[in-house]
Amino acid sequence: MRRIARALLIASCALMPMTPVLAAAARAQENRAETINRIIDQGLNHSEAMLIAHHLTDRIGGRMTNSPAMRAAERWTADRFRAWGLANVRAEPFRFGRGWEILSSRVTLVSPRPLALTAIPVAWTPPTPGTVRAPVIVAPIKRERDFAAWKGRLAGRIVMISLPGTGDEPNEAPFRRLSDSDLAGLDRLEPHRHDPAEIARQLRRASFDAKLDAFLKAEGAVAWVRRSYRDGKLVHGEGYGFARGATPSLPGIELAAEDYRRVARLAQGGEPPVLEILSDVRFDDSDENAYNIIAEVPGTDPAAGYVMAGAHLDSWVAADGAADNAAGVAAVMEAARILKTLGIRPKRTIRFALWAGEEQALLGSLAYVNRHLASWPPMPEGMSGDEVYYRAIHAWPITRKPGAADLAAYFNIDNGAGRIRGIHAEHNVGAVPLLRDWLAPFASLGAGQVAIARTGGTDHVFMQRAGLPGFQFIQDPLDYDSRIHHTNADTFDHLKGDDLRQAATVLAGMLFQAADSAERLPAMPAPTEPVATDPFKVEDPDNAQD
Amino acid sequence: MRRIARALLIASCALMPMTPVLAAAARAQENRAETINRIIDQGLNHSEAMLIAHHLTDRIGGRMTNSPAMRAAERWTADRFRAWGLANVRAEPFRFGRGWEILSSRVTLVSPRPLALTAIPVAWTPPTPGTVRAPVIVAPIKRERDFAAWKGRLAGRIVMISLPGTGDEPNEAPFRRLSDSDLAGLDRLEPHRHDPAEIARQLRRASFDAKLDAFLKAEGAVAWVRRSYRDGKLVHGEGYGFARGATPSLPGIELAAEDYRRVARLAQGGEPPVLEILSDVRFDDSDENAYNIIAEVPGTDPAAGYVMAGAHLDSWVAADGAADNAAGVAAVMEAARILKTLGIRPKRTIRFALWAGEEQALLGSLAYVNRHLASWPPMPEGMSGDEVYYRAIHAWPITRKPGAADLAAYFNIDNGAGRIRGIHAEHNVGAVPLLRDWLAPFASLGAGQVAIARTGGTDHVFMQRAGLPGFQFIQDPLDYDSRIHHTNADTFDHLKGDDLRQAATVLAGMLFQAADSAERLPAMPAPTEPVATDPFKVEDPDNAQD
Repeated sequence: MRRIARALLIASCALMPMTPVLAAAARAQENRAETINRIIDQGLNHSEAMLIAHHLTDRIGGRMTNSPAMRAAERWTADRFRAWGLANVRAEPFRFGRGWEILSSRVTLVSPRPLALTAIPVAWTPPTPGTVRAPVIVAPIKRERDFAAWKGRLAGRIVMISLPGTGDEPNEAPFRRLSDSDLAGLDRLEPHRHDPAEIARQLRRASFDAKLDAFLKAEGAVAWVRRSYRDGKLVHGEGYGFARGATPSLPGIELAAEDYRRVARLAQGGEPPVLEILSDVRFDDSDENAYNIIAEVPGTDPAAGYVMAGAHLDSWVAADGAADNAAGVAAVMEAARILKTLGIRPKRTIRFALWAGEEQALLGSLAYVNRHLASWPPMPEGMSGDEVYYRAIHAWPITRKPGAADLAAYFNIDNGAGRIRGIHAEHNVGAVPLLRDWLAPFASLGAGQVAIARTGGTDHVFMQRAGLPGFQFIQDPLDYDSRIHHTNADTFDHLKGDDLRQAATVLAGMLFQAADSAERLPAMPAPTEPVATDPFKVEDPDNAQD
Repeated sequence: MRRIARALLIASCALMPMTPVLAAAARAQENRAETINRIIDQGLNHSEAMLIAHHLTDRIGGRMTNSPAMRAAERWTADRFRAWGLANVRAEPFRFGRGWEILSSRVTLVSPRPLALTAIPVAWTPPTPGTVRAPVIVAPIKRERDFAAWKGRLAGRIVMISLPGTGDEPNEAPFRRLSDSDLAGLDRLEPHRHDPAEIARQLRRASFDAKLDAFLKAEGAVAWVRRSYRDGKLVHGEGYGFARGATPSLPGIELAAEDYRRVARLAQGGEPPVLEILSDVRFDDSDENAYNIIAEVPGTDPAAGYVMAGAHLDSWVAADGAADNAAGVAAVMEAARILKTLGIRPKRTIRFALWAGEEQALLGSLAYVNRHLASWPPMPEGMSGDEVYYRAIHAWPITRKPGAADLAAYFNIDNGAGRIRGIHAEHNVGAVPLLRDWLAPFASLGAGQVAIARTGGTDHVFMQRAGLPGFQFIQDPLDYDSRIHHTNADTFDHLKGDDLRQAATVLAGMLFQAADSAERLPAMPAPTEPVATDPFKVEDPDNAQD
């Protein structure tokens, strides 16, 4: 509609005096353009985005869900929203489980020579009882059928559970921006494949860590050590297998790849190397609820529904959760500040959501969806983060709630610190023209691409599963995948001011237009029972056991 | 000569029965080819190169000159040479100074929030008296004229002496092999530029660390902290300014770039952050001599002189000195093993040299040159490693000793862990045909390139300065410059077996041919007094103060 009006407007100027209807459309168009100019000025020239990111990263640091640092982040972000004058600022609780934090840790090679190693406790594993010292055994265990080979051999040992492997040979630049052809490559609709055997495999893997923990405990192992999956002294410490449910029995440590492989080589022949581990970590059971922080710019038409932007506030623990995802949070908060500062009052309400529990299983956004938008089948208790994730992602039936109709658009931002280059239409072919129209003013900021690709792995996913209009932006990757995602190097340094200001500005502009648009994005079909894409596929028995 | 003989041989086969002289040349040629085939078989299929490298890195670790680990490396390498049956195995001493090693270290941010930082003590700085705790001050100091701005402000502080800068944006692949065009680009003779103002600047910079240490001490600072020059949590700990002479007064720490910048940001506005530093390092004065380890395969003609291969055994301290330079040492030792195992007895003696003190100022190879090959002007006492280096590199007059005539060729290997792709002819244009001839058998191993470029910075340099035939190989860079050179990630992982075996094999083949060749490499002119390349250049006064 608006695009038609604009085309008419151009034609009309040259030909005839405007009718009142056309004049109103022209005024609306003019207002939209002026508002976008003000958003760009406020976002680029009066930005607070880097100050927000600085506070979240440098001052608060890593924000594991339900940790003391995450509590501080919840308070601080809600306070900022209130200070800027946003409405309905609130913390929506959902049941999560134990908090966890690292107080200090230290891993040392004692023999054959003394050496401090680069290491991090694995999230949600218990502390060591003081400093423990034990010989290692290299016992690569990937699946349950590997247990038999190591039975009776692990008592009193620190068990090195990863294959050492050999060093990586990275042949791509660590820091990248998307080229035109990269962007064009995203504009392709790749059919989703539903593979029941693969889902079964995912679920088996998702419960494996707990089984391994029980096996190692029963065998009398002292602790377990895994290898970092990145070289170059980067460590992560994610604990996907332990996010919820029973607390594991054994301390778990991630060693830098170089350190892991060194110890593994020293273990070949001769006396086993001896390690000393201090893992001074602490569970926090003061509040088992996690909280999504919500704030709003109210719309002028209470019946018009709302649009929403979201980013997850929680992080893993290895560094300060900067690119993942203080960057996204800063963009969302800064978009709120821009819109509020400019006194913009669109037709629809604009809601801002800072999610918790994203790193476990998108638990915060799942809780939001279940509360407001759609029902999922009930989940069994006592599952790991990975189990919840894979169960929820493949769950059926999913039933939309009445509130689903209120959500006109959701924009998620969680792809690192790079500028916005466009938006994924998430297979919603009908949404492309309107998304193009809304992005058009930001083409000269580099954000012009609408690509049909569907994305996963972050907080728009459960909306997408329910057929609701959840979208994720295309962002320049920078060094996110190469060295930042979840690592001990994910600090403020790896944010880029120009990128972050641009992202907040584009987000604010998209929110304003989606909230004020006369047109709504088209709905996707309601979810139906999944059907195997390839019903005649025969599994390789080897894979079937993974 | 040999190349002519070969050309004649090809012609002769078709035309006439051989004369006795031609038959002898053909037999020599045939013997050379058979010997090279045996070297390739021994080097590629019966290699011990990775076992040697494993012992030096994993078992012995970083080998700072005159540290206990370096002493262990000196003993072990000499023992290996003896076990293989090499002749004249000896340790040639030269005066070096204090040894130094890290026992343990820990740097923690205490306030505004507790956080373990990635850090390393700077080599040859003294220990902290236990754990010291003090507020920081960000006081970037690059040259003497910066002192005035900070006078009276540093007492009781941990002084952050580096500019924080912003994060890097690495847009080249970390792991690289040389392309054909990379190789072709090396084959260009770039005239050396003699710039007296630049030399004066280098010498001023080389003595700056000691002046800074004295200034900080006089101001009552507690310790100083510098930023790592690589991002991604890599640290180095080199102490170029302190290698010799007076021991510095203040403990010095290198912080990972991400950690340094975080603290620097926290220092902007409000209370200064407080750090705790434990630097438990130890000087070792048990023997002020360093030692070059020398071993030989004796030649059949005592009057024919010798050829030599060398690599430095010492390293910095952040990791295990694998690519820099256990790789080179393993190649040299393995070449010795190959030649000895095969019972090869060339005309000239083949000498193997493992240098000490390379990381300070090429001190080991300089000592060798001064003892056997050429006289340098006497050096003043009490200079830093950098001062010795720049003085020695620009010294004049240099006088060849009678022993200089005995050195037919020196091959240095110190460019990381990558395979040999060819050799730098080091501006010796006349040497190119013979080097090409010797490399020809290894073209199918990827080592065919002879490039005229001159290289610096390692142990062939002082031979080169004396006009003697010192050459360095061209090697694939792998990840040497991107993340390995002197960092805490320089471990065995970043060596590559196929590359190291190839390098040792090519080196053995080059040594054999150089030792058995009827021809000698042409001499370069004896050094003469340097003349400014650009006598009319006017210095920018800003640069003149650097």
